[in-house]
Amino acid sequence: MYTSETKIRVRYSETDQMQYVYYGNYATYYEVARVDSLRQLGLTYKELEAMGIIMPVLENHSEFLFPALYDELLRVVVTIPEKPSVRIRFRYDIYNEKEQLIHRGETLLAFVNQKTGRPCRPPEAFQQVLAPYF
Amino acid sequence: MYTSETKIRVRYSETDQMQYVYYGNYATYYEVARVDSLRQLGLTYKELEAMGIIMPVLENHSEFLFPALYDELLRVVVTIPEKPSVRIRFRYDIYNEKEQLIHRGETLLAFVNQKTGRPCRPPEAFQQVLAPYF
Amino acid sequence: MYTSETKIRVRYSETDQMQYVYYGNYATYYEVARVDSLRQLGLTYKELEAMGIIMPVLENHSEFLFPALYDELLRVVVTIPEKPSVRIRFRYDIYNEKEQLIHRGETLLAFVNQKTGRPCRPPEAFQQVLAPYF
Amino acid sequence: MYTSETKIRVRYSETDQMQYVYYGNYATYYEVARVDSLRQLGLTYKELEAMGIIMPVLENHSEFLFPALYDELLRVVVTIPEKPSVRIRFRYDIYNEKEQLIHRGETLLAFVNQKTGRPCRPPEAFQQVLAPYF
Repeated sequence: MYTSETKIRVRYSETDQMQYVYYGNYATYYEVARVDSLRQLGLTYKELEAMGIIMPVLENHSEFLFPALYDELLRVVVTIPEKPSVRIRFRYDIYNEKEQLIHRGETLLAFVNQKTGRPCRPPEAFQQVLAPYF
Repeated sequence: MYTSETKIRVRYSETDQMQYVYYGNYATYYEVARVDSLRQLGLTYKELEAMGIIMPVLENHSEFLFPALYDELLRVVVTIPEKPSVRIRFRYDIYNEKEQLIHRGETLLAFVNQKTGRPCRPPEAFQQVLAPYF
Repeated sequence: MYTSETKIRVRYSETDQMQYVYYGNYATYYEVARVDSLRQLGLTYKELEAMGIIMPVLENHSEFLFPALYDELLRVVVTIPEKPSVRIRFRYDIYNEKEQLIHRGETLLAFVNQKTGRPCRPPEAFQQVLAPYF
Repeated sequence: MYTSETKIRVRYSETDQMQYVYYGNYATYYEVARVDSLRQLGLTYKELEAMGIIMPVLENHSEFLFPALYDELLRVVVTIPEKPSVRIRFRYDIYNEKEQLIHRGETLLAFVNQKTGRPCRPPEAFQQVLAPYF
């Protein structure tokens, strides 16, 4: 299992007139935290794309426990629960400044060869960096 | 069961550099189709809010089968599968212009009294309009 | 001068906690109206990109006169005030349901050859369709 | 004159299929940098709203010199060029990682009493903190 943590401050643009973070914006928080999670391992999604591999999302699940509010500094705990194969699962637990768990999310992504459009294994470097955690 | 249909054209702002609709934007498509679904019944979410009732999302589930592309006119089929109580479930099947099912989603929303912050029943008018379908 | 009109309904995701449309979302309204404006002439931006021409925005100017509100059906009047060369200017006047002018915008875009990254003239078909208006 | 600096990393959600940051997303970068600029002075926009003052945008001007790209860590230099009255002007110069000036923006905002909807002066604390710079 691999775990990391990312702080994200809620932007005004992300709120809606209910005075909450709009529910569709959590997917962006997942993305920011997921990319940061890989960066902390020395891997960047940008390089992955430069190698011709894209990571489209296959599934997304979200549970909204409490609203996130404007200007809050959210703490996103990212977990990769299983060894990635041609797919990789990420879990997200989001806490507000009061350390209240306000949101739980999960996404399943594929590694896809951009040219052929077919699923592929993650690059060797990617596998090696993650191996010690599983 | 209640079913309706809404057409949504993919905006440039909704694409990402993978050349697909960004995965977080489907939540907005759900919202647009959901609100339109109620409007076709003579109900507007705007009036609901004016009556002091908000409908925060509790759960969201998405399956990405095929990418949606820029400028495509998507067809979103919305289903309310069960009689709403203090919660209401919506399902979304999204088809591209080739009539290919590209996406499946589901959201669970609550009716909440904005002042008290507590769950409540939908207004009488809302219940009456939906009653014949269940 | 060429003028067209497009209706856009304000989405919940586009509002912010000020209860107004977030100021950054007008750029998307411009885009939707601009693309629709060309479509009404039989031109699609999608085809332009398929021909290897992209239209990045060079300048954007916005005046916010009155707020746009959730669920309003906005009317966007698009004007191409001058004959396009390697650049094309669009003006946008946005009216709310009370026919109040609430917003004025202007964008200057370039025609760029995606491969070379250099400015270029619009395709012949594009020029012919617009010619009668100038 | 008051100047501050904020770093913003480009999110995947902010790119479009042109492989650039979508032009409408710069307004959000302005907002993030503007709010951070005030925070560095000990002022938070959140508190301002809690005091019943909102700051709607009246005008926005943007010049797109070079595209911003995915994952770049942008440096936004914010300037308040004049002493704020019932209005406040912000300028934004955005640099990419190569220290290339890629974008210039300017927004004019009003201080508005949320209850009355009328323009007002910024709170005393706000004026005092900014006074030394003008």
